[in-house]
Amino acid sequence: MAAADTPTILERDSSVYVLDQTLLPIQATMLRLAGLEEAAHAIRVMQVRGAPLIGATAAYGVALGLADDAGDARLDHVLATLAATRPTAVNLHWALARMERVLRKSAPAARRELAWREARTIAEEDVAANCAIGQNGLPLLLAAQQAGRTINVMTHCNAGRLATVAHGTALAPVYAAHASGLPVHVWVSETRPRNQGLLTAWELAEAGVPHTLIADNASGLLLMQGKVDLVIVGADRIAANGDTANKVGTYLKALAAKAHGVLFYVAAPLSTIDFACPSGKEIPIEERSGEELGAGSVPVANPAFDVTPAALITGIISERGVAAAGSLAQWRT
Amino acid sequence: MAAADTPTILERDSSVYVLDQTLLPIQATMLRLAGLEEAAHAIRVMQVRGAPLIGATAAYGVALGLADDAGDARLDHVLATLAATRPTAVNLHWALARMERVLRKSAPAARRELAWREARTIAEEDVAANCAIGQNGLPLLLAAQQAGRTINVMTHCNAGRLATVAHGTALAPVYAAHASGLPVHVWVSETRPRNQGLLTAWELAEAGVPHTLIADNASGLLLMQGKVDLVIVGADRIAANGDTANKVGTYLKALAAKAHGVLFYVAAPLSTIDFACPSGKEIPIEERSGEELGAGSVPVANPAFDVTPAALITGIISERGVAAAGSLAQWRT
Repeated sequence: MAAADTPTILERDSSVYVLDQTLLPIQATMLRLAGLEEAAHAIRVMQVRGAPLIGATAAYGVALGLADDAGDARLDHVLATLAATRPTAVNLHWALARMERVLRKSAPAARRELAWREARTIAEEDVAANCAIGQNGLPLLLAAQQAGRTINVMTHCNAGRLATVAHGTALAPVYAAHASGLPVHVWVSETRPRNQGLLTAWELAEAGVPHTLIADNASGLLLMQGKVDLVIVGADRIAANGDTANKVGTYLKALAAKAHGVLFYVAAPLSTIDFACPSGKEIPIEERSGEELGAGSVPVANPAFDVTPAALITGIISERGVAAAGSLAQWRT
Repeated sequence: MAAADTPTILERDSSVYVLDQTLLPIQATMLRLAGLEEAAHAIRVMQVRGAPLIGATAAYGVALGLADDAGDARLDHVLATLAATRPTAVNLHWALARMERVLRKSAPAARRELAWREARTIAEEDVAANCAIGQNGLPLLLAAQQAGRTINVMTHCNAGRLATVAHGTALAPVYAAHASGLPVHVWVSETRPRNQGLLTAWELAEAGVPHTLIADNASGLLLMQGKVDLVIVGADRIAANGDTANKVGTYLKALAAKAHGVLFYVAAPLSTIDFACPSGKEIPIEERSGEELGAGSVPVANPAFDVTPAALITGIISERGVAAAGSLAQWRT
């Protein structure tokens, strides 16, 4: 399978395969998720990562975890096991709640088949949502373009196709612009400690989009120097008031963008908005192992996310359109 | 030689030895600088780093580069070779200008001996200046302390003893507080791409000062969470108006500190202030090799410094006291 064709998640013959992102960019290997435990493990150790892809993987994890005649106890166990993998990305809990809604009311004997069907639907909807995000974000890139010049987009972490079933969130408008023949260049932050910027560089190279990797520390200087036309990031959870949890370091970019009058957008499907969560203060921040910094016996703190206040966000791009961060209620269904 | 005793630079029997900081924290090895080329190389590849230590090493490099009867042509060559090593830290140019002032007017036969003496004086003055910075900064830590609580200091890069001949600049007040029995804890940023945070963690551990390493990306969250009482960083060049060039990423911390009303101090000897440089706009920013990010064939931009505007700086701590960033003219000699 050529690298350009490698999907992030794939259903084939009642098996689920995911692209093992811990091996990228060195090698592109599809990993078979044999069952519930493998699915939970893949999410926990970040073989799959990115809020939308975590959601889809969790949905398939439910299907993998159910036998032909799964009673309520088994269903509870499956849902609880997957829910415990990672705390911040709300898409995980959104997908599990949706699976439970479909499965709880149905007969145990029918659950397995229903679970596969619903997981498939969640994955397909993610593809469609991200495609729409690309189209909804494209005019924002056009608006930011200085006459005839390359559009310089800055992003953080990986919110590209690798973070989703396809197309990406933050990178969807970039891919849409590139497909339209617009000159676009992406500043890619390394994103310590897990270096997801290398995933972003890998997929942008795969797609032929010009890009430059920088240390996370360099973003403020580039914004000060006028080298960035707009910032687009993904999200792991957007609170009802628009406060946005995303990969740690996002908040620093938002502060620097604000200081230099640069547009700062968050791109995410509706499944990332947690209307039950009033503000950023209520979003749990995952603390990951200090070993991720690779500093031996040095004491380490390793929060994986931070919260960008709605006031620093120019707009949120979803499959429904673009909204001010403070006006998300219009999207409540 | 025990680790705790390892000096950063050492003169012995007409030879100069430096602690090879590219091998830290794995091993503490003293490297003999055999002559001019070795001194220039050590600065260029960051075997010695930190603005004040670069200054002292350059001064010794002049001494190493002069023969017993060094004419003007040789002196010019020695000064130019060392001046070309790194562009941003002004202490380098300050030390070379000072060496030239002493040597140019003296007879060639006397230059070698004079150069050794002046280099020694520069090194001794750095120790004294940093000691004074520690004492001048100590009351600021005391003022930031919440009754009986540990004082949480955040720093960036390494502006500790390893960046100087002794004591450090940003860490000098921390060491002074620790020596006074005050409870102090330091948040240490990894400082990509060269990871000088590991040097800071190493020397704080050596000194018994509690500390926690974080990814550079985590600083905004910690400031938002109220876990930082004050930020102290070093400087590579301070313009006349107080704008400060320091390791890339410093500016992001300054923005976040401002957003949360946290004190942000710059600690540096007077030799770091460039009164000939009106503002941050005129400070050259060194672009280092993209290989420092270790990302293989990915296109990389790697600016090594950024500029923090004076408006974000609470005060500048020097051997002369503490001044508002906009009031440095009082220190002009």
